[in-house]
Amino acid sequence: MAAALGRSVMQQCLSAKLMVKPAISEDESAEYVQITRGVVMFVCFLKDASNDTVEKMVRSLLDVKLSYCDERKKRCSILELPGDILIVPQATLGGKMKGKVVQYHGNIEKCAGKELYHQFVKRIKEEIERKQVDVEKNQSQVKHGTYGNLQVLSMETNGPYTHIIDF
Amino acid sequence: MAAALGRSVMQQCLSAKLMVKPAISEDESAEYVQITRGVVMFVCFLKDASNDTVEKMVRSLLDVKLSYCDERKKRCSILELPGDILIVPQATLGGKMKGKVVQYHGNIEKCAGKELYHQFVKRIKEEIERKQVDVEKNQSQVKHGTYGNLQVLSMETNGPYTHIIDF
Repeated sequence: MAAALGRSVMQQCLSAKLMVKPAISEDESAEYVQITRGVVMFVCFLKDASNDTVEKMVRSLLDVKLSYCDERKKRCSILELPGDILIVPQATLGGKMKGKVVQYHGNIEKCAGKELYHQFVKRIKEEIERKQVDVEKNQSQVKHGTYGNLQVLSMETNGPYTHIIDF
Repeated sequence: MAAALGRSVMQQCLSAKLMVKPAISEDESAEYVQITRGVVMFVCFLKDASNDTVEKMVRSLLDVKLSYCDERKKRCSILELPGDILIVPQATLGGKMKGKVVQYHGNIEKCAGKELYHQFVKRIKEEIERKQVDVEKNQSQVKHGTYGNLQVLSMETNGPYTHIIDF
């Protein structure tokens, strides 16, 4: 099996809230983004990841049927739900346990990772906008975290259905 | 690389709350367990997992240094923190994406999975109790979800630091 280039963890939520800017001073409070029912996508890029990796991830993660639809008792994609998307950069996903510590030698260099992350967010937004023109009832919102920040997250779920998807 | 026998996702939390018994009727409300600062351990057993797999997971997951200690600015184990532990059975971790659907052919048979899960919970509790005798200040609580239930979870984090650890 070839080494993964991109790694994602998907967790479903009823609501999720992520800090995108920490409080700098007493006068300026922290900033948050929020979504309602949908999915939290944690993403991480590994060595040799490229825009191709981003494209594969965007296509698959929007299409994969892992959201629970109460009404139909079968799994549907986030586009079919339709649900919101919260994208969280999560470099720790690239970690490998070695003895008692976790090492991150497989992760892509930070600057390149930031570019791929921005490309991923841009492409998810484009795809969601494109699909919403096609299907009027689809009103998914896309929110995302700030690369390199501490990801302060709260979420409520009706079953997180944690999935790991490698690319 | 040999196929994984056990898979875990670790997410740090400031608090987490999990439903362990759904509401059956209007008179009987749902039951929850709750932890404060610590870690949420999602666990899944794959084909050919055994008590050996459980032992390896218990030892590693308690010892691996991935909790953020504000004071010392370095990572420490959940035992060193000390922190609470919420164990969540999460069969979806064994899923593999095939086209647009996720398949679970690699998962262990449900009955065997339930036994290993109970063994895992028992062994984590034993280890925590044993360590708490050694180190008085350690007052970790261990809570766990019900195997086979829908895992209704809420959590607050100060950075989820999502880690995937295979065994």
